[in-house]
Amino acid sequence: MIKMIMHGCNGAMGQVISGIAAEENNIEIVAGIDPNMTKENPYPVFSSLESCDVEADVIVDFTSAKAVEGLLHYSIEKQIPVVLCTTGLSEDQVKLVEEASRQVAVLRSANMSLGVNLLMKLIKDAALVLSGAGFDIEILEKHHNKKLDAPSGTALALADSINEAMDQEFHYVYDRSQVRKARDKKEIGISAVRGGTIVGEHDVIFAGTDEVVTFQHTAYSKAIFARGAVSAAKFLAGKKPGLYTMKDVIET
Amino acid sequence: MIKMIMHGCNGAMGQVISGIAAEENNIEIVAGIDPNMTKENPYPVFSSLESCDVEADVIVDFTSAKAVEGLLHYSIEKQIPVVLCTTGLSEDQVKLVEEASRQVAVLRSANMSLGVNLLMKLIKDAALVLSGAGFDIEILEKHHNKKLDAPSGTALALADSINEAMDQEFHYVYDRSQVRKARDKKEIGISAVRGGTIVGEHDVIFAGTDEVVTFQHTAYSKAIFARGAVSAAKFLAGKKPGLYTMKDVIET
Amino acid sequence: MIKMIMHGCNGAMGQVISGIAAEENNIEIVAGIDPNMTKENPYPVFSSLESCDVEADVIVDFTSAKAVEGLLHYSIEKQIPVVLCTTGLSEDQVKLVEEASRQVAVLRSANMSLGVNLLMKLIKDAALVLSGAGFDIEILEKHHNKKLDAPSGTALALADSINEAMDQEFHYVYDRSQVRKARDKKEIGISAVRGGTIVGEHDVIFAGTDEVVTFQHTAYSKAIFARGAVSAAKFLAGKKPGLYTMKDVIET
Amino acid sequence: MIKMIMHGCNGAMGQVISGIAAEENNIEIVAGIDPNMTKENPYPVFSSLESCDVEADVIVDFTSAKAVEGLLHYSIEKQIPVVLCTTGLSEDQVKLVEEASRQVAVLRSANMSLGVNLLMKLIKDAALVLSGAGFDIEILEKHHNKKLDAPSGTALALADSINEAMDQEFHYVYDRSQVRKARDKKEIGISAVRGGTIVGEHDVIFAGTDEVVTFQHTAYSKAIFARGAVSAAKFLAGKKPGLYTMKDVIET
Repeated sequence: MIKMIMHGCNGAMGQVISGIAAEENNIEIVAGIDPNMTKENPYPVFSSLESCDVEADVIVDFTSAKAVEGLLHYSIEKQIPVVLCTTGLSEDQVKLVEEASRQVAVLRSANMSLGVNLLMKLIKDAALVLSGAGFDIEILEKHHNKKLDAPSGTALALADSINEAMDQEFHYVYDRSQVRKARDKKEIGISAVRGGTIVGEHDVIFAGTDEVVTFQHTAYSKAIFARGAVSAAKFLAGKKPGLYTMKDVIET
Repeated sequence: MIKMIMHGCNGAMGQVISGIAAEENNIEIVAGIDPNMTKENPYPVFSSLESCDVEADVIVDFTSAKAVEGLLHYSIEKQIPVVLCTTGLSEDQVKLVEEASRQVAVLRSANMSLGVNLLMKLIKDAALVLSGAGFDIEILEKHHNKKLDAPSGTALALADSINEAMDQEFHYVYDRSQVRKARDKKEIGISAVRGGTIVGEHDVIFAGTDEVVTFQHTAYSKAIFARGAVSAAKFLAGKKPGLYTMKDVIET
Repeated sequence: MIKMIMHGCNGAMGQVISGIAAEENNIEIVAGIDPNMTKENPYPVFSSLESCDVEADVIVDFTSAKAVEGLLHYSIEKQIPVVLCTTGLSEDQVKLVEEASRQVAVLRSANMSLGVNLLMKLIKDAALVLSGAGFDIEILEKHHNKKLDAPSGTALALADSINEAMDQEFHYVYDRSQVRKARDKKEIGISAVRGGTIVGEHDVIFAGTDEVVTFQHTAYSKAIFARGAVSAAKFLAGKKPGLYTMKDVIET
Repeated sequence: MIKMIMHGCNGAMGQVISGIAAEENNIEIVAGIDPNMTKENPYPVFSSLESCDVEADVIVDFTSAKAVEGLLHYSIEKQIPVVLCTTGLSEDQVKLVEEASRQVAVLRSANMSLGVNLLMKLIKDAALVLSGAGFDIEILEKHHNKKLDAPSGTALALADSINEAMDQEFHYVYDRSQVRKARDKKEIGISAVRGGTIVGEHDVIFAGTDEVVTFQHTAYSKAIFARGAVSAAKFLAGKKPGLYTMKDVIET
């Protein structure tokens, strides 16, 4: 039985992860950390990491960027691998993560869902074949009307994944309304649709002569990110120091 | 039998229209006009309107914006209704069209296909119901990688159609990557995807709380515009002066 | 303030409706009915209609077909309009509903969502135009892997809606794998995809020569049916006897 | 320069392939074979293979199943690799192909398009990851209203491709309307939509808990099959005996 600490246990995602972990039979939450103590949980909750002395095999974090530094110190000191689901890290914080990963196992991904991470991998194979055959690549994402950033971090990660496989030959284009010219072969257009409560949809489109291949991921609820986090926790427990991603979880 | 003059008969669309008109049994092309005389046609071809003295019930035009003025003069003088499929008219030329339509029947549309023009109408009804219920409206279009303008004229016409039904309360947004803020209720986002040889796809998306309604039109070949032009010609023959659109053809 | 009785208040949908009604400011639940008394609610709950003597303007029902008869008697006796969301009624029960509607206002629909009911109306307009122009009509629905019936009641209702507008000229086809022949002009193919936890997606496809028009509805959560039920309750309160549907709610 | 014989040069696909081959600069058609001599071609045309003594590096065949036996004899005798695009072979004919491939290079595929064959490969990887994680697999195809068979050969080939990767554990289901029961984990539902002139669309859908991954291929014209045939011809010229498929072409 893998023992897990839920960092940010009383936030929305912390609660969803708690529910999903409770249904699994080879992982259990042995402690939660949250300064906000309003929720009832079937495990002990501590107001801070420092006050938590429970033994554990893995930490799952869904808090905010500013809590990352303390979390990494704790992971290194206690030698407990950490699944970092918090997004919006600054460049300095990303560096801290990389440094920490030399001393303890750290897993971090732009998107925790199984489906998106599988696509991240398959579109590399597709790009190598189809881009060579003259297909143009476009990415389209749809999210709810409250989302502040555009395009989504996942859309950018999908584009980066292709670019990595293709020797960084593509540049990204977000708006075509201001120029009157034909598409450049070396661009990836990224479009962002916003409306209603759409949880998240990503299309990676390869458009060739008279045929189009589309890879589409549709999320119906945020629970998929929670499920991915629990899979990542199971994977990461017992791993040696290093920087891991959801791709490693999928390839297991 | 309706007698039709094909203005621009040796262009790509002129040839497609000629093929489609030949298959219909209540319309026939009695003359073609084109300074370029390279194609063989089953009807007499004149190098200019002035040199054409064939009697006709309707003219279909698929030429270029600069030919519009001469065409309108001819239509008025000969009292022959004209279906104007040429796009990219200047504001002055649009005024000329409006003036001409007081003396002869003129039909002009942003998109000649039956499907798009039906959507143009139905999305008005949808907007009245769904926008009132808090749904956000977005438009997405996909075209081939040679298209110079973005968004497409049809995407703008779809947005204008909704705006007309909704007291012009919406403004259009083409790029969300430069700001970090939530969507405004009064915007219609319009996204343009470009790639391969995509003939034309338009999605009008109404995104509400936990449900999305999408109206999609997909064109598989430019022949649909030719077919629309022939339907318009049949409709317009014998009509009294006025400015008509494809919507009038559909509502027949 | 409209006073509502929630019939089946402790079922899954009853609870969702209770949550949504609580957020609205011109309707309130004054009583719940459920033999199962396990849930806590902010309103009094009675184990049966007979034991409920609270005054109300409308009843919303989300129970099971076998409870319909008792419910209709109660509605007529107390003269309280009833929104009937329960599905799977037998022919005899449907007749009972029709008879009851001569004495009290009854609203009943195959699908309670605003979006689906709007489509139900618009596809009639589309069928009149496009079917006349030779377009073929197909319906595709996707639902979760626990759904017992196929195709969905909503898919059939969409097909019926078209057929009603087109003088019942179409028959429905559910399987093409057993014959080797071209499609008949007078068929509506209805396909059912089943997988995962898909809440419900319906596509009505009009396929013509070189163009396709698709009307798509995607549900992201069952809350949309709850929201529709609350809108229907507000609409129905105070209405005179008759059989109403969600279409009447939309057209208000 | 690769020298190619076009077998069935005056059929619709033979003509499209001729046009595409003419635009390529490292392959040329040196002879055409067709009993029907009505078309004009820029290469010599023979009424039968027997009468053709032109030297060549590869034959591309787009004729009918009954011509296959003679074609294979000729290929073996002259030692010219052959790209077999003709479909609808009987079991006996498929055996002949396999036997012939021990003596000469033969390439045969259910679908000649680059995009479909790439998907054929990627969905295997997807099935291994997603089916293991409990996702259900469904296939949906759309074709024109003249197509006689359903589901399409390509849809079946996509299903077979998944089944091959998954130890043949799936059975196929074409109709769910006759039973009232939940989906079996070991089924792949295959749905066929028919309408208008749709050239061919294939969706492979992986539906999991709260997320769906879809792989979609859309064909806009039959020219993609011609293009695939020409790519296959370039690949096959000079290859040693064996049975090849489009997958080998893609993996080059």
